[in-house]
Amino acid sequence: MRMYDIIQKKKDGRELTTAEIQYFVNGYMGGGIQDYQVSALLMAIYFRGLNERETADLTMAICDSGEQADLSAIPGVKVDKHSTGGVGDKTTLVLVPLVAAAGAPVAKMSGRGLGHTGGTIDKLESIPGFKAVLSPARFIAQVRRVGAAVAAPTGLLAPADKKLYALRDVTATVDSIPLIASSIMSKKIASGADAIVLDVKVGSGAFMRDKQSALKLALTMVDIGSRAGRRTVAVITDMNQPLGYAVGNALEVQEAIDTLKGQGPPDLLEICLELGATMLLLAGMVDNVQGGKRKLLDLLKSGRALNKFIEFISAQGGDPQVARRDGVLPAAKLTVAVPASASGYIKAINAAIIGHSAMLLGAGRENKESQIDPSAGIILQKKVGDAVKSGETLALIHANGTERLDQVKEHVWSAYQIGDNKPEPVRLILGSIPGEL
Amino acid sequence: MRMYDIIQKKKDGRELTTAEIQYFVNGYMGGGIQDYQVSALLMAIYFRGLNERETADLTMAICDSGEQADLSAIPGVKVDKHSTGGVGDKTTLVLVPLVAAAGAPVAKMSGRGLGHTGGTIDKLESIPGFKAVLSPARFIAQVRRVGAAVAAPTGLLAPADKKLYALRDVTATVDSIPLIASSIMSKKIASGADAIVLDVKVGSGAFMRDKQSALKLALTMVDIGSRAGRRTVAVITDMNQPLGYAVGNALEVQEAIDTLKGQGPPDLLEICLELGATMLLLAGMVDNVQGGKRKLLDLLKSGRALNKFIEFISAQGGDPQVARRDGVLPAAKLTVAVPASASGYIKAINAAIIGHSAMLLGAGRENKESQIDPSAGIILQKKVGDAVKSGETLALIHANGTERLDQVKEHVWSAYQIGDNKPEPVRLILGSIPGEL
Repeated sequence: MRMYDIIQKKKDGRELTTAEIQYFVNGYMGGGIQDYQVSALLMAIYFRGLNERETADLTMAICDSGEQADLSAIPGVKVDKHSTGGVGDKTTLVLVPLVAAAGAPVAKMSGRGLGHTGGTIDKLESIPGFKAVLSPARFIAQVRRVGAAVAAPTGLLAPADKKLYALRDVTATVDSIPLIASSIMSKKIASGADAIVLDVKVGSGAFMRDKQSALKLALTMVDIGSRAGRRTVAVITDMNQPLGYAVGNALEVQEAIDTLKGQGPPDLLEICLELGATMLLLAGMVDNVQGGKRKLLDLLKSGRALNKFIEFISAQGGDPQVARRDGVLPAAKLTVAVPASASGYIKAINAAIIGHSAMLLGAGRENKESQIDPSAGIILQKKVGDAVKSGETLALIHANGTERLDQVKEHVWSAYQIGDNKPEPVRLILGSIPGEL
Repeated sequence: MRMYDIIQKKKDGRELTTAEIQYFVNGYMGGGIQDYQVSALLMAIYFRGLNERETADLTMAICDSGEQADLSAIPGVKVDKHSTGGVGDKTTLVLVPLVAAAGAPVAKMSGRGLGHTGGTIDKLESIPGFKAVLSPARFIAQVRRVGAAVAAPTGLLAPADKKLYALRDVTATVDSIPLIASSIMSKKIASGADAIVLDVKVGSGAFMRDKQSALKLALTMVDIGSRAGRRTVAVITDMNQPLGYAVGNALEVQEAIDTLKGQGPPDLLEICLELGATMLLLAGMVDNVQGGKRKLLDLLKSGRALNKFIEFISAQGGDPQVARRDGVLPAAKLTVAVPASASGYIKAINAAIIGHSAMLLGAGRENKESQIDPSAGIILQKKVGDAVKSGETLALIHANGTERLDQVKEHVWSAYQIGDNKPEPVRLILGSIPGEL
């Protein structure tokens, strides 16, 4: 077998065999196949695509490049949840304690992030004392005892994904649906969960800008999961404006706590209930999504979800006072208002611009070396459909310096579109796959 | 400027600017841009193409990566000729003395080859004593004195082409018309000729298998030449069977000498007259191609073309007896006949198979380290349209060992198709661009 022939075959639009896909992934990891051949193949895949079988084979080859987590010591169906990423997406912070409070074990491995804000781990680390690095034994023991743990992967889960992603990142081959799907699913499968709920976001603040691409990505990932023997459901959700009001690490933790207290933004609550109920369904704990939502609402109202959050945070060294009083989370020195320059209704908020603004404030990493400022970020005061008067505050910027402040103010202001008429209400849940649920 | 953005732009099907093309070629040569980004761009170019302006810019950027030969010390219009490569193509060996005998200076830089036989330089080196490495001063002095010289480039002409070609060769990105055209034309322009005649071959033994691709390649190269201020004509010629009878280095030199003596194969003569007359036209020595052909035929009949060959060979140290008697060129130890197994007419001869067979005998290089056997090769006894009887010899294999002989015999035999009816005569000259000539 020769890598040259594999590139040529895909370039010509022909189907690669399982053996050919394994040969290229193993050869790349083993050092026998060089970057320049792999990047040529990735570009050919961008243009020619991979069919479902090829995509599943690629996923498993990437997955098999490292070890798979063994969660068999945890009783019950372990359900994982993954979001394709959006601005202000703090659903994991809510869902982990909420689903655990319902009795489903949540053994979540999560990452740090490059982008507008940090990843779930970065957000949790804004809680004083919280530790994300757990040994596998401690991780499993915590899930058994508390019902929930969120940890950075200890071993190398799917190391081929890391190497391939780094190459895609510099060769403009990131935006290929089979490559995105195999990257996400290889890590999910390696993480060891029995079932997977995918939150596929679509809109201006998401990687998938249009519904058709999001649908294709969702279908592809669900197919991969099924072929790998994991029950997988994808929920397609709107990301045309940020989710909730808060964008920034500590700010998002605070909003998640508010949500667990029953005082969260309605859009965040709606998505958390949908995803959480789907997780309970896959865990076999409810008969349908509606039943799951009712159960989760009860747990929020009774305070049991908040208690589970405190229990889970404490188990990983975090200060439990974070959920009880203000002043525990780091706060920014400056709070600057962005005023509206017209009256009317908020027609749209460009989530990508809000996300980029948060990154400029230090809430996200510009590159791998960047240090995150946990207190920086943006709190939206107005969302799509809200009435606004000229001069009223659209958003509050939380910053620790004045360096980029004018630029960020301008950015945030430009993200808002104000119109004369009240727009149609936003539909948050656009569909789920497979649809029969 | 970032290479990432250049890849992304081409991937999206957008036009690259002159500055972007220069940035990528210069960055690749300077070491700032890596193989893996260039191979991704090359694959994107394979799928998206380059327009005429981009192709010309790429050609000039490659050309400018090295020095350009300065032929200004040679009086007159210097016309170069290039073939896209075919099996049994010894036209350069005939054309150099023939055109020089007509009074047009021929300052030809030529290469060695990877493939079925060596390049022109390899063929000439089968003449005892012939030296292809000339200093620029000696090269120019010889053209001024004799009217013709063929040398391997001394400096690095278009070094970026060498680096890009090596990368294309391992990433399955060779077969892109703008990349082929810029590769060929960058070297032709760097070689310093005022005018260029291109022999674009099409058929089973050529790089371009169909007429439409050949036409596109011809149009692209003529456009590049014009934009670079070189009068350029492309002649499209048939390569569905080998040209002439001989395939192999010394065997082809012998056939070229026979042609200069007026005893060559008719197809080789026809193509040499067409290309040679076009060269004379571009050199301003005749008014039209027909006039050029008459002039060249006279030079063949009078023996002046053969005398020019002897003069040119001798000037580079070659034994002039090669044109006067047998036994000067190296000869193979074994001559093995390949017999026909049916009677009828030769319907087709797969030139690629004949070429590959010659390579297996040692006439061509399998890899860069291969040593060429100058005496090895194949002499066809039958060509398309010839009548044949079962048992009659189709071709003679010239070999120095028995190692691969059975395999080659089988190959050569399989290249021949014999039918019951006499096929239509082969049309050799399929067109020329620009057509108004």
